[in-house]
Amino acid sequence: MSERIALDDLNAMDAAGFCAALDGIFEHTPWVAEGAHAAGPFASVSALHAALMAVVRSRPRAARIAFVSAHPDLGGKAARAGDIAPASVAEQAGLGLDRLSDAEFSRFEALNAAYRARFGFPFVVCVRRLTRDAVLDAFERRLGNDPEAELAAAIEEIGFITRLRLVERVEGSGMPNVAGRLSTHVLDTHKGGPAEGVRIELYEVGRSARALLRETVTNADGRTDAPLISGVPLRAGRYELVFHIGAHFAARGLVLPEPAFLDTVPIRFGVSDPEGHYHVPLVVTPWSYSTYRGS
Amino acid sequence: MSERIALDDLNAMDAAGFCAALDGIFEHTPWVAEGAHAAGPFASVSALHAALMAVVRSRPRAARIAFVSAHPDLGGKAARAGDIAPASVAEQAGLGLDRLSDAEFSRFEALNAAYRARFGFPFVVCVRRLTRDAVLDAFERRLGNDPEAELAAAIEEIGFITRLRLVERVEGSGMPNVAGRLSTHVLDTHKGGPAEGVRIELYEVGRSARALLRETVTNADGRTDAPLISGVPLRAGRYELVFHIGAHFAARGLVLPEPAFLDTVPIRFGVSDPEGHYHVPLVVTPWSYSTYRGS
Amino acid sequence: MSERIALDDLNAMDAAGFCAALDGIFEHTPWVAEGAHAAGPFASVSALHAALMAVVRSRPRAARIAFVSAHPDLGGKAARAGDIAPASVAEQAGLGLDRLSDAEFSRFEALNAAYRARFGFPFVVCVRRLTRDAVLDAFERRLGNDPEAELAAAIEEIGFITRLRLVERVEGSGMPNVAGRLSTHVLDTHKGGPAEGVRIELYEVGRSARALLRETVTNADGRTDAPLISGVPLRAGRYELVFHIGAHFAARGLVLPEPAFLDTVPIRFGVSDPEGHYHVPLVVTPWSYSTYRGS
Amino acid sequence: MSERIALDDLNAMDAAGFCAALDGIFEHTPWVAEGAHAAGPFASVSALHAALMAVVRSRPRAARIAFVSAHPDLGGKAARAGDIAPASVAEQAGLGLDRLSDAEFSRFEALNAAYRARFGFPFVVCVRRLTRDAVLDAFERRLGNDPEAELAAAIEEIGFITRLRLVERVEGSGMPNVAGRLSTHVLDTHKGGPAEGVRIELYEVGRSARALLRETVTNADGRTDAPLISGVPLRAGRYELVFHIGAHFAARGLVLPEPAFLDTVPIRFGVSDPEGHYHVPLVVTPWSYSTYRGS
Repeated sequence: MSERIALDDLNAMDAAGFCAALDGIFEHTPWVAEGAHAAGPFASVSALHAALMAVVRSRPRAARIAFVSAHPDLGGKAARAGDIAPASVAEQAGLGLDRLSDAEFSRFEALNAAYRARFGFPFVVCVRRLTRDAVLDAFERRLGNDPEAELAAAIEEIGFITRLRLVERVEGSGMPNVAGRLSTHVLDTHKGGPAEGVRIELYEVGRSARALLRETVTNADGRTDAPLISGVPLRAGRYELVFHIGAHFAARGLVLPEPAFLDTVPIRFGVSDPEGHYHVPLVVTPWSYSTYRGS
Repeated sequence: MSERIALDDLNAMDAAGFCAALDGIFEHTPWVAEGAHAAGPFASVSALHAALMAVVRSRPRAARIAFVSAHPDLGGKAARAGDIAPASVAEQAGLGLDRLSDAEFSRFEALNAAYRARFGFPFVVCVRRLTRDAVLDAFERRLGNDPEAELAAAIEEIGFITRLRLVERVEGSGMPNVAGRLSTHVLDTHKGGPAEGVRIELYEVGRSARALLRETVTNADGRTDAPLISGVPLRAGRYELVFHIGAHFAARGLVLPEPAFLDTVPIRFGVSDPEGHYHVPLVVTPWSYSTYRGS
Repeated sequence: MSERIALDDLNAMDAAGFCAALDGIFEHTPWVAEGAHAAGPFASVSALHAALMAVVRSRPRAARIAFVSAHPDLGGKAARAGDIAPASVAEQAGLGLDRLSDAEFSRFEALNAAYRARFGFPFVVCVRRLTRDAVLDAFERRLGNDPEAELAAAIEEIGFITRLRLVERVEGSGMPNVAGRLSTHVLDTHKGGPAEGVRIELYEVGRSARALLRETVTNADGRTDAPLISGVPLRAGRYELVFHIGAHFAARGLVLPEPAFLDTVPIRFGVSDPEGHYHVPLVVTPWSYSTYRGS
Repeated sequence: MSERIALDDLNAMDAAGFCAALDGIFEHTPWVAEGAHAAGPFASVSALHAALMAVVRSRPRAARIAFVSAHPDLGGKAARAGDIAPASVAEQAGLGLDRLSDAEFSRFEALNAAYRARFGFPFVVCVRRLTRDAVLDAFERRLGNDPEAELAAAIEEIGFITRLRLVERVEGSGMPNVAGRLSTHVLDTHKGGPAEGVRIELYEVGRSARALLRETVTNADGRTDAPLISGVPLRAGRYELVFHIGAHFAARGLVLPEPAFLDTVPIRFGVSDPEGHYHVPLVVTPWSYSTYRGS
């Protein structure tokens, strides 16, 4: 990430400097920054973003449609070329839109065509907040919206997109929350303490495939040294944690039958709130386990 | 299953009748029944089986080796022809030895050759008590035995094989326990009662494949009308239950985020005791679950 | 319990015999049985009871008030003399109305007086379905009813009272469900099986006192040989199970710190459905436990 | 707590200054500090304490007995006067030795006499690390020691006492760990998030009485703003947390039967490691709960 502009500096700029500093956050739409400048200075980066979006929302309907139309098609050439979400970090890469199966690609193209035909503007979605499957689901669901609701939905997505871009460009007080967190914890209630050295895999679970996002090992506190995902939105979608707990009990020297009752424990869960905190622990013995959504 | 002989009737038979009645339980080995007849009458079918095995075990080493050698090779033509375990019931069919991948088939042939070279008799195992993977694991593990221990292991397996045949041929008091039981129960602790109508799948989980053994639905008591497996040995191996709990909560009308935290809950577990009772319940809310080996 | 009349025999009786056979079930009110006789023969004991109650409910308001008034005061002399619920079995005796503290007795007398003044008939409640505290709570709650609702409530209670009397007098198909069941189960997920030999106490927990209802020990299946309560209504109220689990782990020879993390585990729970099934298990290791309302 | 001396300053002192600075940490025993001075400078407060104890342990047996004998009787006048542990903080006051029942007091006096008779020196224990019951248990257990083991045990206790005094007198790097921590967390898996506003009580549970140590309420994260106990040793002994969870579910507007299945949930647990971290969470729905020793 290149160096960010301080909010205080931005607040001190004249309109031209302000617009230059925010160039590209709203694609091909300089009037958004121009319109917001007068509302400054801004007490927080959140307030700045709200002001920018307020400019968009205050425009007449036709202008809002033109605004949305300035965004590129999600699919087409872009989809399989994989250049949609260059900023998405490697740990959370998962099943991107560049890895559609043929059937999914066809479905995607059909949805794109139907969407354009119905609404007259391209489908816009903040792909950094969704897994591939969730993008396809949103596509299908939003096709059922009435035009007014869908225009609002598209603008809300542009809000998510530009909010992520803004926090990468500007720093200062009152940063909007754009990052979720996924963490885990393995507690061995057979021995009465954290389970150390447990190998854990995190998968994104799509309908047609699954992708390994992360492999890690628990530390002496039964946690991972860093959260499984943090600093970025959690992509809404379905995941699976796999805990290699059989090896842990074997390493403790427990005498267990062969095959053991528990060996690899899968926990499959959905994420619906990309900026939420998901703590998904495993409380486990050789003969039982439980999990829950913690915080 | 054809009609069975009553133990009382068997006890009343002379040696010739007794041997004829038990023909085929010990393959090509009439002297086993002949030797046991004098020990009757038998108070229980278990005692009858113990007497038959005692005859085997009392023979000199060379005779015991010849006895084991009278059993057909597990693999060879038989393996992929699928005629090894004709009695295995459909519900528990799973990944039979007739469904080996090419790699597994090669491994199997190599093990067979190595086994014969090392011990001088064919590998005998009660295939009705093991999954395909467990057969291969047992093969590899037993190759490491010393000859004396392995001869005993082979005879113990013949004990399991003949015990199953005997209970299909003779009925009476004191039947040996040859059947395990796998059951489940879904309790919804969000509503405080059994979860009815939950779809459940049971899979055998092999290293190279998985096989759907059973599909069922919970009744008003949160249980399945019949155990998932009963009346036969549980094949030692690895299994997975999948509970379609998301549909249950949706059917209850709960308003949950999309995607829900829990949708399909997989519980992966090992069976080591083919004649044991495995109760594997799911205690679940939309945000948590636990399981354990019950009884 | 004296010998019961068969429903078939009752169905065959003339009106006089029928009324004589049911004498005393509805106190001092022969017209109830008289009125119901014509509706016979009855397909079930439940149908018989429904017919008796229908006679009561069909009477004009004044007659219904007179009917309720024929019932003795709950309190007064009776309360502390302990002769209200002679049929309650010893195991469930608990904190009867004969064991009121002075403060509770005063509260009781005041409620009685206020109730009579407000409704003009005595407070009627099926004391076999409630603990002492629940009787006092019901008293207070029902004082807030409007007269029509309270008359219906009193008659519903008489329904509960007479239903219990009826099943003690008549037997046949379609017996009404008048008995609840409380059971438990201790599963040791440290060893992976039932916990045998665990001492369990069941207490009724009142606001001013607690009463030991039952002491028992788990069997090899981790259950009690008989349910903790069965065959009678569970008295609605609050209870506590105490599991002596520390002694169990010590008996297994586990080396645990002193004092152990878990020694006696109390589980406090409420019963609201006297005819319901309450299964309250303990799933436990030396470092964790869980419980739930099972069925 | 008065101002503490910096370890660096202490390290710079001559013997006289050093002894004056540490005066009173070892009661009436100036030779301990004198003996340790030469081992300085000390890299950590832990190393300083180890050096002080090494001086004690290096003395001949008679001197060590005299050293222990310089400590006052635990009981006698002191016991009921309550001046034994002036430093114990109010939150953890509990059932002090000043609150012995008559029976306990008699038992205490008898133990004191027997101990003196057997060992020839007074019973020394670090009362800030034990509940009253645990002190009495330790008394009884240690009476069974052989004299050598008991002398070592007494000196180890003096180690605990002086370690606590030392950290109140000296500050610097490498402070010994003298504080435990008890915390909790209430997670409502019916709603899928922390339970806020849950009232919690913490009791010390003695054999003859129980004492309320703390009352608190969960915050928005389902935790308490501060740990239930921290900054001091957890007194080894038995405790009970009581969670007022019925009020929480009622406040959420859930429609539950009356009485609710869960109202107040007691969790009774033992603490054996005064400097350990005990996290005792409650994971709860209206129909189930679980707890475990977390960390």
